[in-house]
Order: sequence, then structure tokens, then C-alpha cells
Amino acid sequence: MENVLGLRCIHCGKELPAKTGIFTCPTCGSKDGILDVEYDYKRINRLNTRKQVENSKDFSIFRYHAFLPIQPDTPRPHLRVGWSPLYKPVGLEKSMGMSSLYIKDDGQNPTSSLKDRASVIAVIKAIEEKATTIACSSTGNAASSLAGNAASVGIRTFIFVPSRAPQGKIAQLLIFGANVISVQGSYEDAFHLSAQAIERWGWYNRNAAVNPYLVEGKKTVALEIAEQLQWEVPDWVVLSVGDGCTIAGVGKGFQDLYRAGWIDRLPKLAGVQSEGCCPLVEAFLKDQPWVPSEENTIADSIAVGVPRNPEKALRAVRESNGTMIAVSDEEILAAMGFLGKTSGIFGEPAGVTGIAGLKHLLAQGTIKPSDKVVAIVTGNGLKDVKNAIAAAGKPMRVEPSLTVLIEELKKRGIE
Amino acid sequence: MENVLGLRCIHCGKELPAKTGIFTCPTCGSKDGILDVEYDYKRINRLNTRKQVENSKDFSIFRYHAFLPIQPDTPRPHLRVGWSPLYKPVGLEKSMGMSSLYIKDDGQNPTSSLKDRASVIAVIKAIEEKATTIACSSTGNAASSLAGNAASVGIRTFIFVPSRAPQGKIAQLLIFGANVISVQGSYEDAFHLSAQAIERWGWYNRNAAVNPYLVEGKKTVALEIAEQLQWEVPDWVVLSVGDGCTIAGVGKGFQDLYRAGWIDRLPKLAGVQSEGCCPLVEAFLKDQPWVPSEENTIADSIAVGVPRNPEKALRAVRESNGTMIAVSDEEILAAMGFLGKTSGIFGEPAGVTGIAGLKHLLAQGTIKPSDKVVAIVTGNGLKDVKNAIAAAGKPMRVEPSLTVLIEELKKRGIE
Repeated sequence: MENVLGLRCIHCGKELPAKTGIFTCPTCGSKDGILDVEYDYKRINRLNTRKQVENSKDFSIFRYHAFLPIQPDTPRPHLRVGWSPLYKPVGLEKSMGMSSLYIKDDGQNPTSSLKDRASVIAVIKAIEEKATTIACSSTGNAASSLAGNAASVGIRTFIFVPSRAPQGKIAQLLIFGANVISVQGSYEDAFHLSAQAIERWGWYNRNAAVNPYLVEGKKTVALEIAEQLQWEVPDWVVLSVGDGCTIAGVGKGFQDLYRAGWIDRLPKLAGVQSEGCCPLVEAFLKDQPWVPSEENTIADSIAVGVPRNPEKALRAVRESNGTMIAVSDEEILAAMGFLGKTSGIFGEPAGVTGIAGLKHLLAQGTIKPSDKVVAIVTGNGLKDVKNAIAAAGKPMRVEPSLTVLIEELKKRGIE
Repeated sequence: MENVLGLRCIHCGKELPAKTGIFTCPTCGSKDGILDVEYDYKRINRLNTRKQVENSKDFSIFRYHAFLPIQPDTPRPHLRVGWSPLYKPVGLEKSMGMSSLYIKDDGQNPTSSLKDRASVIAVIKAIEEKATTIACSSTGNAASSLAGNAASVGIRTFIFVPSRAPQGKIAQLLIFGANVISVQGSYEDAFHLSAQAIERWGWYNRNAAVNPYLVEGKKTVALEIAEQLQWEVPDWVVLSVGDGCTIAGVGKGFQDLYRAGWIDRLPKLAGVQSEGCCPLVEAFLKDQPWVPSEENTIADSIAVGVPRNPEKALRAVRESNGTMIAVSDEEILAAMGFLGKTSGIFGEPAGVTGIAGLKHLLAQGTIKPSDKVVAIVTGNGLKDVKNAIAAAGKPMRVEPSLTVLIEELKKRGIE
């Protein structure tokens, strides 16, 4: 890792070497002492120029290997993670009254969520540390992406999920052969039990906030957005926020590109939570320390009452001159519908929460209709069919007869 | 379409122009008179060389535009269809005792199935014919892919699905704003009602066997396999068979490449159905005309008792010196599990039916362990979570306590 200078505590600034077994700052402890990976940007540019990246035939996150904290020769899982499509859906754009709206559909990853970007790095780091078992707690997507990526290289997994995790995510875990522990309690309970078990058995820890390398995987979504826009940075990047790691990753990605001289400005970040669980939005808007919240939202992936990476997340939004906002579950369900209808993109509730927030921010005037905006869809709607049906209603049931069909269509005013 | 010579009836050989409104042979009728698109291969090579394709930065089916029956200037839906990953999963390979096994994961398409390849062509042809409404009947995947691709360009859809279609596929349709008609009956009933309604209202017809252009979209999976293997054709391509259109498309793709001089031999095709619904396997093995069958299988996407494209499908398998085989639902469920566990790939039941068949064909000696084999996974497992859970069991439910967890793991012999 000649590109990596080391790790730095985001709390006290202490510098540590990027070495086996170092995950959090020993001075600040595992809760506050979250570490950042620091790079030698001159070295990055020597390893790989922007031009070389543009010509790379590797359409996965590894086209940005010079920005990743992994050894070049560590075996990689075969799943194709990253290089998800960036769409400019004109129907959606028009319906929102905008002129430059892009959707980054990260549901198009191997296990159908953005979390694959972090999990593939976790698996590579586990291989580098010669671990044979990886564990994590997750609201679902981190879990299924870890299980899938680990299965692809034959590493055992233990996954702790809260009892409310939707069936689609549970099904993925089981199919990938994970040891799935459904913790009868909240995400907080699942997180605690996983931490105890990881310590007890010495498993490799994929808990996103604790493991400093995972944000580095997540940041690749920002690198891709920049390249897919020919390095013309958008005014805003809008996305949902749970634990805080993903928005921290997006911020890190743009920062890295800026420091390496590949882009000439930074986008503002807009973080969106659900009203039923928005500790980070409240902390941001009130400019006060965050307080734990209930986890009362259909957007299960971002129902995180005790966020694990609050400091990195808030720092990323503030440094970008961005903003945060909360939306209702009804607005989230409505966003699933209007996104699907106008663009053919199907996001899970947390996946479209950013788009629901964008609507608000446009109405508020915070984001202008002429701004160049990228909204990230973080997970595929097939992961949570129950809520999709709640969002979109039911099919018309018809006996196999044309006469009956004509009647039914007439009743509904369809011609 | 300077690359297209015209259409030819696969039954009587009659030649017809590739023009608006011509779908089936007027002499043979809409059931038997299925048409094939014929190309000028010299013209294709003038439009686009193999080298130019290799250097194309368009990572979608449109990198093969010279092989597609569409006008170059017709607007295209924005969804990124095709260029799905071709994996060489060593864990799976080892568990099957093989040395050269590839998986083409077509669940990694915008609406999570291979059918996107056909639907995007249907939408383009509908735009060329100035249609504002498209309709189809489908076991689910053709439907959701049509609904998604049509939504992306603002075209209205009417979708006829049999009552048994799984919830995931229904949810997709509704989210994409389709008019969904759940026909209380079999696929055959849904197909008939759609045909009547299409005639009654003059909608554009996306029924795969009837519309000659859809197989041309499906064939792109073969073009990609060839390119991803550096034009070194595999010995076998194995996949599931329902209506017969997909395997016909795979056959057509390799034939086109061969005739254009891009590959120097053809792979054998192995078509796999479920024992509960295998009219084409029986016709193939007995060398007799096919007879309608019950639709008694969990693999809903291939539960087609009255196949709509039997002739093209059987011809493709026979011309390739390939074979067909039926597997049980238990074998299909088992394939979901061992594929997921050893490779991190999650296929729906019909999606992994080819892999279940491959296991049989290896045991029979029809396919040798040293053969170079590509198995196509045709759809994502998230589309049918119920069967995934049936395949993989349930999670371990644990109270949030380390002591309880230790007990539970001990009980199960996990350390």
C-alpha cells in the first residue's frame, strides 16, 4: 500500500500506521476513535493518472485501485462491484421541474446495494489479515453484501440482523450460506451482540463505522460519479443517511479527487433521513450533539437510532457546505412510485429517500431547479417487496375473458 | 436498417420485408409462422469490425448495434441493458468437479433478468412504429422488463400475468406504473387474453414468440459471452427453457457471429426444463411433436405448458448438436443453495435451472468435467424470495445476549 500514508483519528488527530489489527484509536476508544485513511496523493498520481483511469477496461471499483487501501496482489472476489449506471432520466427530470438531474443506480450491484462497495474491501482486508471468518451487524444490506462477497471466496460469515430486517435481505443471506443470527431487538441490540461475539471469537470485524477501510470502498461511488460526468462535478449529491458511513464515504471520495487534482471543486452534500429516525438531521439542524432516536420508519436500511459514524457524517456534510433534511414515510413511498413510473428505476425505501428529500429541498429553494444534481439510489426495490406493494397498490384481477377485461378497464376509466 | 435483408418464415421459408406491421407469416398464420430476421453479414462487417467492438466504450447491448434490427437514430431507453458479468467462480467449479465453468449472471440487468434484452428492443421498435402503448403476457420477467424499459421513455403498458406470478415481479410492474392484469388462470390463459386485447385496441405486441425482433435482443447474451471469452467459443452453453425464445436467441447469436466470421465454431446448447413442465424436453428426447403440459413447477418463469416458440427452440438445440434435459424442483432448489454458497450469485428458480441441469449432464457423461461450459443465470433470486427461503432455511433467532448465542451455536455444532 505505497499510496497509503497511515490512519488518523478523526477525534484527537492521532496518527497510526495502517497495520493489521488497528481499527480504532487506542486513546479515544472504539466508539469515538474512528480512523480515516490518509493517502499520498503524489504517489497516487504516479501510480495512475486520470487519463489511464479513463482508458481502463476494468469496469469495477478496482479501476480506482490507486485510491484504495489494499495490496495490489491480494486475491479479489470475482463479483463485479461498482461502475453502476449514472442515468439522466428525462421523464423524472421533467416531473421534478429540473434541468440537470442524474440518478446513480447503485441497486445495480452484485447483491443489489451500494454496500457491496464496502464489503468487497472488507473481504480483501480479511484475506490480507489471513482471517477465515468475518462478522458484522447490519440492517440488511451490509449483511447480504458481505455474505455474497465472502461466499465468492469461501470465507465463513456470521451476520447479526435486527428482527425487523425484510425477507428479501434474509433470503440473500441464507442463500449465500451465512450463519444468520436474527437478534430479537433493535439494530443497536444487533450491533452490541455482534461486537461481543467478534471479541469472543476473534472474527474479522466488518462493522462499517469501526473498520476504517469500509468508507474507502464506499467512496468509489463518488469517484464513479465524477468520471461518469467527465470530471465536471455536480452542484449537489443527494442521498439517504443511516449509520453515516455512506455519506462520509461520498465526501471522502470527492475530497480525494480534489486533493489529487482530478477535480477542481467539491459538490455540496445533502443527507436525508426519515422523520421516524433522524438523529443526524436533528444534530445538524440544531447544531447540537446527536441524541439516540427511535427506529420508527419503513426505510429499514437507514433506521439507525444510534448512528455509528456520526462525526464523519456530520463533518462531511458541513465541510461541503451541504445540508440535511428529514422526510416522512409517506413521502418515501411516493418517491418509490414516481421514480419507478418516470424512469424505470426501482429503489427500496431507503434507496429512494434521497429523492424524497430532493423534492423537499427544491420546494424550500435550497436546491435550485437549474442545479446539476446527482441523487444516489442506494438499494434495489426487490429487497423489500412488501413496501413496494404498499407504495404502488395492487394489480387488477380479471377472469380470462375479453368481455370482463373491457368492463374492468371501463370501470377504471382506462381506454 | 441497412444490415437487415428481411424476414423469413421458419415454417415455409417465405421471405418478407422487415416493415411496420409484419410480425408473422401470412401464409402459415400467427402460431406457426414465426419469422427470423436475416442479415447481410458483409454489411455488418462494413458497419462495425470485431476490433471496433472490442474498443467500444458502450457497455450495453448496443455495442453490437450492427447485429441489431433497429434504426441507428431511434431514441433508446436510458436503462443500461446487457454487458452482464461473466464470472469464473472457482468455488462452484471445484464443487462440481469441473475445470472451466463460467457463469453469465443476467440477473444483473436493470430489472434483474435477461428479458431486459428483449424488452429494450420492443420499446425501440414500438417507438419506430409510433406506438404509444405496448402490451404483453408474461410469466413475470418479460413483463417487468417491458414495464421498466417503457416507463423510462414514457410509453404506456398493459401487462397480462398469470395469477401465480411471484410478488417481486408484481411489485416491479406496479412501481413502473404498468396497467397490470392478473389473469385468474394459467400462462396460456394470460397469453390468449393479451392476444385478444392487443387486437381489440391495436397496442404494440411484445409477445416474444410473435414479435420477430425480440429474439434479436436476447441473442446479445451470446454475443457478450463470445466477446467476454475473447471469441474462444465454449463447448457448451447451458440454460433454462420456457417459451423457447431465449435458447433460440442464444442459438441465433452464435450463428450470427459465425456467419459474420467473428467466431470459428459453434457451441452445443443444453436446454433445461423442470420435470413438472417439460414439453420441449419430451419432444426433443422422443423426437416427436411437442404436446401441451401442466405447469407444475416452482420455476415460474419457465412454467410454460404451451410453448410459443417450440420450433425455433428445438431447431437451435438440434443444429448445435446439443441436448435437453428435465430436472426436479428439489434439484432446482438445491442449485439455488449451492450456487449461492460457492459463488455469491443469487438466482431465481428458473434462473438456476440450467445449473441443476448441468449437474445431471455431468453425471450422465454428456458434458465432460474438462469441457468449457457457460451456464446462464437468467434472473435474480430477489424476484422470488419465498422459494429462496424454501431453498435455504431460516435464520437462527436469538435474544440479544452473548450467553444465549454461545448456547445456540453450540447446539448447532458451530464454533
